[in-house]
Amino acid sequence: MTDQPNLPPGVSASQLATALKRFETALGADAVLSDQASLAEFYDPYNLPSRTNFKPSAALFPTTVEQIQEIIRIANEAKTPLWTVSQGRNNAYGGAAPRLPGAVLVHLRNMNRVLEIDEANAYAMVEPGVRFFDLYEAIRAGGHKLMISVPDLGWGSVIGNTLDHGFGYTPYGDHTASQCGIEVVLANGDVLRTGMGAMRGNRAWQTYKKGFGPTPDGLFMQSNFGIVTKMGMWLLPTPECYMSCYASVPKEADLEALIETIRPLVLDRTIPNYPIVGNVLGAASQTSRRKDWYNGDGPLPEPVLDDMTKKLNCGRWNMRFALYGHETIVNTQYKIVQAAFAKLPGATLGGRKYAGATMAQDVPPSDRIQAGIPGLDILNMVAWYGGDEGGHLDFSPICALKGAEVVRQTQVVRGVVESFGLDYCAGIIIMPRSALQICLLNFDKKDPAQVDRAFECCKALVVAAAKAGYGEYRAHLEVMDLVAEQYDFNDHALRRFNERMKDALDPNGILSPGKQGIWPKALRKARS
Amino acid sequence: MTDQPNLPPGVSASQLATALKRFETALGADAVLSDQASLAEFYDPYNLPSRTNFKPSAALFPTTVEQIQEIIRIANEAKTPLWTVSQGRNNAYGGAAPRLPGAVLVHLRNMNRVLEIDEANAYAMVEPGVRFFDLYEAIRAGGHKLMISVPDLGWGSVIGNTLDHGFGYTPYGDHTASQCGIEVVLANGDVLRTGMGAMRGNRAWQTYKKGFGPTPDGLFMQSNFGIVTKMGMWLLPTPECYMSCYASVPKEADLEALIETIRPLVLDRTIPNYPIVGNVLGAASQTSRRKDWYNGDGPLPEPVLDDMTKKLNCGRWNMRFALYGHETIVNTQYKIVQAAFAKLPGATLGGRKYAGATMAQDVPPSDRIQAGIPGLDILNMVAWYGGDEGGHLDFSPICALKGAEVVRQTQVVRGVVESFGLDYCAGIIIMPRSALQICLLNFDKKDPAQVDRAFECCKALVVAAAKAGYGEYRAHLEVMDLVAEQYDFNDHALRRFNERMKDALDPNGILSPGKQGIWPKALRKARS
Repeated sequence: MTDQPNLPPGVSASQLATALKRFETALGADAVLSDQASLAEFYDPYNLPSRTNFKPSAALFPTTVEQIQEIIRIANEAKTPLWTVSQGRNNAYGGAAPRLPGAVLVHLRNMNRVLEIDEANAYAMVEPGVRFFDLYEAIRAGGHKLMISVPDLGWGSVIGNTLDHGFGYTPYGDHTASQCGIEVVLANGDVLRTGMGAMRGNRAWQTYKKGFGPTPDGLFMQSNFGIVTKMGMWLLPTPECYMSCYASVPKEADLEALIETIRPLVLDRTIPNYPIVGNVLGAASQTSRRKDWYNGDGPLPEPVLDDMTKKLNCGRWNMRFALYGHETIVNTQYKIVQAAFAKLPGATLGGRKYAGATMAQDVPPSDRIQAGIPGLDILNMVAWYGGDEGGHLDFSPICALKGAEVVRQTQVVRGVVESFGLDYCAGIIIMPRSALQICLLNFDKKDPAQVDRAFECCKALVVAAAKAGYGEYRAHLEVMDLVAEQYDFNDHALRRFNERMKDALDPNGILSPGKQGIWPKALRKARS
Repeated sequence: MTDQPNLPPGVSASQLATALKRFETALGADAVLSDQASLAEFYDPYNLPSRTNFKPSAALFPTTVEQIQEIIRIANEAKTPLWTVSQGRNNAYGGAAPRLPGAVLVHLRNMNRVLEIDEANAYAMVEPGVRFFDLYEAIRAGGHKLMISVPDLGWGSVIGNTLDHGFGYTPYGDHTASQCGIEVVLANGDVLRTGMGAMRGNRAWQTYKKGFGPTPDGLFMQSNFGIVTKMGMWLLPTPECYMSCYASVPKEADLEALIETIRPLVLDRTIPNYPIVGNVLGAASQTSRRKDWYNGDGPLPEPVLDDMTKKLNCGRWNMRFALYGHETIVNTQYKIVQAAFAKLPGATLGGRKYAGATMAQDVPPSDRIQAGIPGLDILNMVAWYGGDEGGHLDFSPICALKGAEVVRQTQVVRGVVESFGLDYCAGIIIMPRSALQICLLNFDKKDPAQVDRAFECCKALVVAAAKAGYGEYRAHLEVMDLVAEQYDFNDHALRRFNERMKDALDPNGILSPGKQGIWPKALRKARS
């Protein structure tokens, strides 16, 4: 860390000023911010000033690919590190803030065109600034019979979420799997299109994922190897019928049986979407705050959790899933699910059917997300401890979709969380063969000791999970290096490989240094 | 080309002999072949001696990852180019033959272990030598309720087919999409595992595709950036019911309406598999030879095609597809398909239902492939012109799945094929949003002029298709450079990118030089 927190390492104040002048010439003065007051919008939203500095030195707002090429040219010449965000709304992991203090933010929110919507082949091509809200509106405005997949919060970028391995909840909920074709600006300024887009005038770019030869798309996700400027996303044709379903089991110990009940149903796509299974605290935090239930220190005692379960009239574990398609098939799928749940003692099951094209105002908020209707309702969860000044940090490991595995992983996570005196709040996204546990480490930003505890807890979780055989799918800026460190097969072969890619593609190390633990050569000082 | 056809460029006979001695020391004498008679097995099976030389100088048969590392070490030191094949059965595109004459074949057929089959999460992990036949047998032997996806010919390698973007016909027919986790030996000898396998002791490697940071899996497909030694493949849980279905339309001009009929059905997965639509010549060539129909030169005249259609009691375009799942759902899906085809004048539709676990002997050969039962029946198509000495070359462009697009592309292809005096034989694999046309350029190996004509036709097709906006998904050794050349967006940005990767990962250019048009620095002489 440097005395002037907003200068990147090795860049003097006058060098930065010169670079900013050049950025202004290239983009216009309105597209360059460098006063601290304006930049505060882009700080890690839930971190404390007393903690690590992840502040940018400036922010740039390009509107075209050519401007991004120009930014890259200047950054290479001035050796100014950049940090790219699409909307920068990934708040549980650091928001828009750069991993490297002083990096210049390349904020893509003004590149926000929906470039194409094709109903016959059910895809959209978008720019990075397009939010889930925007894509939803564009599809409605065009009258297209298409349903998008949205994550819990609709304010994020479709591209940003996908590049960071994001999930939604329709059958297209695995967003990286729904991506088809990207355009990316490389660190040498070259514009690359992948798949069929690598051929001028090709007519199948957004309909077939591969091209001729290797497919590099995955290289540009969760990485710092390029700046993605266009992406195709496959969409669900609006189904005749959408059925939003709920299930629950009464006891903590029922989780294993619940997972084993749904495992074959998601594997054979009787349940075709990405369900989520949350604990009672997950349910409680969406509609209430901790003080409504308990005022003591330490994790919530079991009797309080039982009390919650009773009063909220829910289960210790609660599942949301959905069915989509021809109504007769949806009815049959639901009957198959009913038969499976009938064997699960104490389980509840229910569902509500809608026409697939139902408008947002006709669907209660709780049933909107699975219908691809974006919202912000879930934000309330963050207020658990701190109310309006609540914050959170997410810890998110993957495991195989087997009852015993999911239970084992939740026990490892809960044990560590509670050992730090925090409440265990978890939602488990169910994929056909694996599960992604999102453990919300909520805290009160007015309580610096609790904020520190949440971050230290997160670090302890990373190490404990790896020891138990689980890796994370994402990480907050502050734990990126630690998470990457756990991927240690063959003495960190993956890191060596990533660093070789980084050196080959970005020898000056200007693109998002430190992202996902990948550092350019000059900044690898910590490792020997 | 060199006078001694089996020496790689820049390697003298004595240098090669020294390298082979070292390979023998590392692998054992039995695992190294260098006499021409034995090597003939690995020549391009359908090419002529009078044409381009794609012969290897030797062949190595490693059995372990460590032996591959040793091969790579020796090849780097001796600057000996290698060419890797898993089974080398991709006969329409060159078989096991290396693109670079004289390259040493690294043949992985002896690394043939099925390493793991997990029924609960429905995956297998295999080595490169495992054929579709082998995986099928291993699953049967273990009594696992799993169905594999197989391509038309079962003798190929599961890994090899997947790395080359291969297709089968079950709902898991897009093999690259079903891949989860690879182990790859890089050109510096480093062993890399992708996804969760990048963490020692991780318990989710074959269940979740990504890891932390960029996902390089696609980089190792259709590429020469590494040697893949393990791969996870997702499998279909054996469905309660399998229904093999057939449809046809009577007239050539019905193709557009046929595609428009099935487009929404595959898009919303009412038809959940990868159907194929073939022209009448595709049907005829599976059961008869050209001389049975016509003895004239030039492409088959329309009246002959009409005659074929009548006598074979099929359509001018014939479709095969299948349904899988709970019988009640299969029945409903079939009703929906029936209703759609009822609007298509002259169309026929039919199907046969089986229990999903039906054994091969209980299923007629024509219904086996879509049930994941491997076979070799389709080989008969190659005998069209030449009988036992028939050969073929495949031309295989992609287009968006729209009736007008598919028709436009088939017309471009048919026009070129017939202008070379060849019969137009095509099968179109239907994906949810795109179509892959496999145009079989059959020939008689006893007729060198016809062989030449087929190869020249293929080259003309590559150029004509690109001009019309279509790119190929695979290519024969002889047209790899030409196909790669068509991917020309931004003055060949993709090629520049691939070459940068190649130089970074394989500076000595030892791995499969020329594969998919990617050449190491020292051999890029042709371009300036």
